Amino acid sequence: MSAGKLFLLPNLLDESLDAAPFLPANLSPIIQSLQGLIAESEKSGRRYLRRFLTHDQMAALPLKTLNEHSAPDQLEELLAPLKNGEIWGLISDAGLPCIADPGSDLVALARKHQIAIQAVPGPSSIILSLQLSGFNGQKFSFHGYLPREPDLLEKQIIELEKRSRAERSTQIWIEAPYRSSKMLEFLKSKLQPQTRLFVGVQLTTPSERTASLTIAEWRKTSFPIEKEPAVFLIFAH
Amino acid sequence: MSAGKLFLLPNLLDESLDAAPFLPANLSPIIQSLQGLIAESEKSGRRYLRRFLTHDQMAALPLKTLNEHSAPDQLEELLAPLKNGEIWGLISDAGLPCIADPGSDLVALARKHQIAIQAVPGPSSIILSLQLSGFNGQKFSFHGYLPREPDLLEKQIIELEKRSRAERSTQIWIEAPYRSSKMLEFLKSKLQPQTRLFVGVQLTTPSERTASLTIAEWRKTSFPIEKEPAVFLIFAH
Repeated sequence: MSAGKLFLLPNLLDESLDAAPFLPANLSPIIQSLQGLIAESEKSGRRYLRRFLTHDQMAALPLKTLNEHSAPDQLEELLAPLKNGEIWGLISDAGLPCIADPGSDLVALARKHQIAIQAVPGPSSIILSLQLSGFNGQKFSFHGYLPREPDLLEKQIIELEKRSRAERSTQIWIEAPYRSSKMLEFLKSKLQPQTRLFVGVQLTTPSERTASLTIAEWRKTSFPIEKEPAVFLIFAH
Repeated sequence: MSAGKLFLLPNLLDESLDAAPFLPANLSPIIQSLQGLIAESEKSGRRYLRRFLTHDQMAALPLKTLNEHSAPDQLEELLAPLKNGEIWGLISDAGLPCIADPGSDLVALARKHQIAIQAVPGPSSIILSLQLSGFNGQKFSFHGYLPREPDLLEKQIIELEKRSRAERSTQIWIEAPYRSSKMLEFLKSKLQPQTRLFVGVQLTTPSERTASLTIAEWRKTSFPIEKEPAVFLIFAH
């Protein structure tokens, strides 16, 4: 039997949003065609499918999970139906799969098994932030989450500032909602006054706020962040 | 008068495509609401608008250009109507503005003038490639176009391979259509056998081809590229 297909499907950046305005028009028929879905949790998978399927369609669709707790040998298991010709989807809890989640190992293994892979465009908080920042988009680096331990964090931030200056590149990272505000205060105290910092909070939602200022300007600016997802970009010169 | 708004609008990765399947559903009403459009050329701007507007609507909509030949003082001119409260859009010839084009300077200036900026999600060949590669998506760098001169190119490629290995990061760059095939041959001859290379050609089009292999495997693989846009990713370990 010929190998199946894995669709890398976009999710919204916030699950409370309406699907329609932010996702591509071809998404709904693709989801109708799936024989199963892989999500970070059953709950988030069901919440996603509810936007596109009837109750009966959902009940008939197998749902499996892939997250940071998944063991490497579970990947083979996840792909078993695709090796038998089935068409499955992969989603992340927010935004695009295989960027800041464990999806890329699954894609690597799927390629080994000659499973076709198709990625459907959608919202990426990294790319939206880069566009909104006004910083260099021709050269940039993404670092995921930075270390939490203050000394290590400070060391890395100073290193990214130096690299930005040396390369004229934009440096990007994300922070967990409950630490976003702390990260902003840390950056205001540790970076050079002329370094530019962009902060994007709750992108694509009605609560979206962005600011792109020098650290000297940030120090005079009030920008309250509750426990909200945020993206941080710096450009030093 | 209050300042206007600049929409950063997604374009297709190839202008021959149908708009509907790849762009978000909220794009059409946004374009209907615009008071002007900034594009890389008048021709590409008109081709874009034709997907969404009637002939009469198009004739009434001012079109301005921003490209690598634009002088810095032209940016102020481009923003003049927005400073007077108008709503304009910015597009790139392919994919998302402000990534690998001169749009980011315009955004930076718009921010200085307190002009609101909104980015609409859409296809990015960089991000689609990263997802399709199976390489590390939690840590990656984009380098735009690499140098053309062979000695400089070789030096940079070896440096990116070293950086990928040291950081466990994915290194990404693009190449002009007429040089894509040459780039692939160059990489096959210069990189280490165990380094992984992803090549994505004509993404999102019916001619899409991707492969993600070690250099040793690439050396035994035929992957013809005509004059087609391509994205290159490496991951060394």
